[in-house]
Amino acid sequence: MTPDEFRQNGYALIDWISNYIEGIEQHHVSNPALQPGDVRAMLPAHPPVAGEPFSAVLSDLDTVVVPGLTHWQHPSFFAYFPGNSSYPAILGELASAGLGVQGMSWVTSPACTEVETLMLDWMQELLGLPERFRSDSATGGGVIHGSASEATLAAILAARWRVTGGEVNLHGDTTKLVAYTTSQTHSSIEKGLRIAGIGSDRMRIVDHDEAYAMRSDELDRMVREDRRVGLIPFFVCSSRGTTSSTAFDPTREMAAVCRRENLWLHVDAAMSGIAALVPEFRWVNDGLEFADSYCTNPHKWMGVTFDCDLFWTADRAALIGALSILPEYLRSKALESGAAIDYRDWQIPLGRRFRALKLWFTLRCDGVAPVQAMIREHVRLTQLLADWVAADDRFEIVAPHPLNLLCLALRSANAATDELIDAANRTGEVLFTRTVLDGRVCLRFSIGARLTAQRHVAAGWQLLQTLA
Amino acid sequence: MTPDEFRQNGYALIDWISNYIEGIEQHHVSNPALQPGDVRAMLPAHPPVAGEPFSAVLSDLDTVVVPGLTHWQHPSFFAYFPGNSSYPAILGELASAGLGVQGMSWVTSPACTEVETLMLDWMQELLGLPERFRSDSATGGGVIHGSASEATLAAILAARWRVTGGEVNLHGDTTKLVAYTTSQTHSSIEKGLRIAGIGSDRMRIVDHDEAYAMRSDELDRMVREDRRVGLIPFFVCSSRGTTSSTAFDPTREMAAVCRRENLWLHVDAAMSGIAALVPEFRWVNDGLEFADSYCTNPHKWMGVTFDCDLFWTADRAALIGALSILPEYLRSKALESGAAIDYRDWQIPLGRRFRALKLWFTLRCDGVAPVQAMIREHVRLTQLLADWVAADDRFEIVAPHPLNLLCLALRSANAATDELIDAANRTGEVLFTRTVLDGRVCLRFSIGARLTAQRHVAAGWQLLQTLA
Repeated sequence: MTPDEFRQNGYALIDWISNYIEGIEQHHVSNPALQPGDVRAMLPAHPPVAGEPFSAVLSDLDTVVVPGLTHWQHPSFFAYFPGNSSYPAILGELASAGLGVQGMSWVTSPACTEVETLMLDWMQELLGLPERFRSDSATGGGVIHGSASEATLAAILAARWRVTGGEVNLHGDTTKLVAYTTSQTHSSIEKGLRIAGIGSDRMRIVDHDEAYAMRSDELDRMVREDRRVGLIPFFVCSSRGTTSSTAFDPTREMAAVCRRENLWLHVDAAMSGIAALVPEFRWVNDGLEFADSYCTNPHKWMGVTFDCDLFWTADRAALIGALSILPEYLRSKALESGAAIDYRDWQIPLGRRFRALKLWFTLRCDGVAPVQAMIREHVRLTQLLADWVAADDRFEIVAPHPLNLLCLALRSANAATDELIDAANRTGEVLFTRTVLDGRVCLRFSIGARLTAQRHVAAGWQLLQTLA
Repeated sequence: MTPDEFRQNGYALIDWISNYIEGIEQHHVSNPALQPGDVRAMLPAHPPVAGEPFSAVLSDLDTVVVPGLTHWQHPSFFAYFPGNSSYPAILGELASAGLGVQGMSWVTSPACTEVETLMLDWMQELLGLPERFRSDSATGGGVIHGSASEATLAAILAARWRVTGGEVNLHGDTTKLVAYTTSQTHSSIEKGLRIAGIGSDRMRIVDHDEAYAMRSDELDRMVREDRRVGLIPFFVCSSRGTTSSTAFDPTREMAAVCRRENLWLHVDAAMSGIAALVPEFRWVNDGLEFADSYCTNPHKWMGVTFDCDLFWTADRAALIGALSILPEYLRSKALESGAAIDYRDWQIPLGRRFRALKLWFTLRCDGVAPVQAMIREHVRLTQLLADWVAADDRFEIVAPHPLNLLCLALRSANAATDELIDAANRTGEVLFTRTVLDGRVCLRFSIGARLTAQRHVAAGWQLLQTLA
């Protein structure tokens, strides 16, 4: 592709993307008839022997790819979690691809590192996070990870390093370490514990209360019991906004246990943490001042194209200790003082692209006002929906719904709720996912797409009423 | 940003990228005068309170970001490894950002999964890899990871799972497991072993020969010795093209040990594996038919924008066993039928974007002919450079140079070579990195940028001669 062709094709693709997003309601949210293998069957089994015009690729996007997608930006996408792409963020991703630089170390592209550090500090301010997470604080700092899964793994590894005084990097013995979560904690914690050689058997499931939040008295009891039998408690995950039902663990009370017992407290607010951009929802941050690490995802509710997870720690020495592969005698004072950050030592992979650009573009071109307005509207719509559901006695609201997710169920039976979800999704007009809360099958009605308006929520609810 | 503004700004950014790449020689390769903090100091300490025009952002790209970059696409970038962004790949990344879909499971966007699977099968064909890596083989398959570091970690975890019969996921006990590499193996293997709870003490450094390739007789001896003392050998990494010097381990001979001892054989060809696109360099694949897993990076020598690591395994059950975790909110009928691939179970993170598009766009728009021509030219230039170096008796070629990397040193002393590297880099006109081969400091002359022509290599060499 020549530079001139790139320009022409690039303009065409920009137009195509804008048409896709603005015209997204032409499509069903998903294609329920699609079977595994259907998309592949429409494409050549073997690679092309010669180049094709870009128009052929665009045409296949329309005829093969788009009909095979689940449209995360569709206003009737009520499944999983929000996955928006703001226009400035799309351009930020484009700029990153065009520049093609590696940000593994400061020296491999200083601007890539420094813009990222600045964005983490800007976001600390905008979200009202503790000062001790700032890169210019004595011991803290932030980094962009690809996903909350990588952030939680990094937190586990930092905790593992700290509790063993770094020895784990050498001998790898993790057989006494114990971590604490609830049954509501995101699966990435268990996956991270497996990866880190802790294993599921040493992940304690602490009881939750009727709001699906951890019982901190139970945490206290279990930690004492593990200590008593000679195990080494080391890591606690506090969810602020669980995936299943937006439950908020009592972070502040959990922190008291963690401080006393010297446990690493990781706070996972992957979805809900972004709500702190709005002053009246800043309560989501409660207890963060005691956290050793924290993450939230602009790629969920903020419109910064996946992948963009913001991870902060108050103990960067432990993080770098866990993930730096430089031998001790090469560890630089500049690195630990914060003068130059080598982000490869803050993450699992070595390579990294210029992901900060999409956050920078979004904050500069749009500011936070559009995101604040969107979050307020989504929360308003969720509370309105809750009123509607409460007025229909076939349905029940199963969990608290402080933000943008409503878990509802048919009163009749689990099977009926499962059938309702399937029937609704089979129309292709909406998409819901399910969860199970203490044995109760729930339909998760997650309101988070940028284009979702009241009419979409109303139509989704009417569909459920009709099918019920 | 409105849709109309997105179009106008998008066109402007497309132009800007094309101007950046085509005009890249206006810039120094890197800015040697830059100090930590310099870039940040040019930007506002606090986030903007209102949106700004896109032209202001573009202007800051020119005045703040670009002067703070190390330009990986510059034709005189001879450092690290190649990091090209082809024009079609840039557009593929743009399309992925615009669609904004999640490919964590088949059901979350079937086309995202199926195009990816097809691309892995296309690349198996184009690279001439073993059939048993194909997704339609009995036990194998491929996936795109973000980086070779993630691929090697996945390989370690699959190996760990297999050797423990899956038990490691529960009890986490890794205290007897032993892995084997050489001192030339990429640092991501040691980092992966630390993450996985193996630890550096149980990573055996097998001796290498004078070509920096593993001595398989030593591997054999060390494995037997570890068995004798009750340890459990489980993982061997065979590098095909080491980072330091493009050394090729004797994969076929190592495989014989692995088969006898039932060890997982991972082959890392992150940089050099792409050479197999060219028929006369297909020897880089030697021994792959015995590998349990393999990875190579189109984001290095092939021009597919970072991040794009291709990872294949011949034992997908072990990989999925190691990495699968299934909470209620992620269950799907497609998964349970076994007909669909859920790539979240093939990787560390949960979320994933539509990375296959950039590979698909590249293969369709350009085909492999331009990459084949580029690889041949880079290898030709490297051999030409070797002739020039051999004719100057102040210099010495330190290692074999079968592809696009020449390791050279001044005969006088290590300090002189280090000074030479620093002096060359201080000009900003070239960028080299160093390595140490058996105590000998070397300048790595890596030829891999798409725009590198003979005049750039000649100028780089002349600069070294002048400074020597």
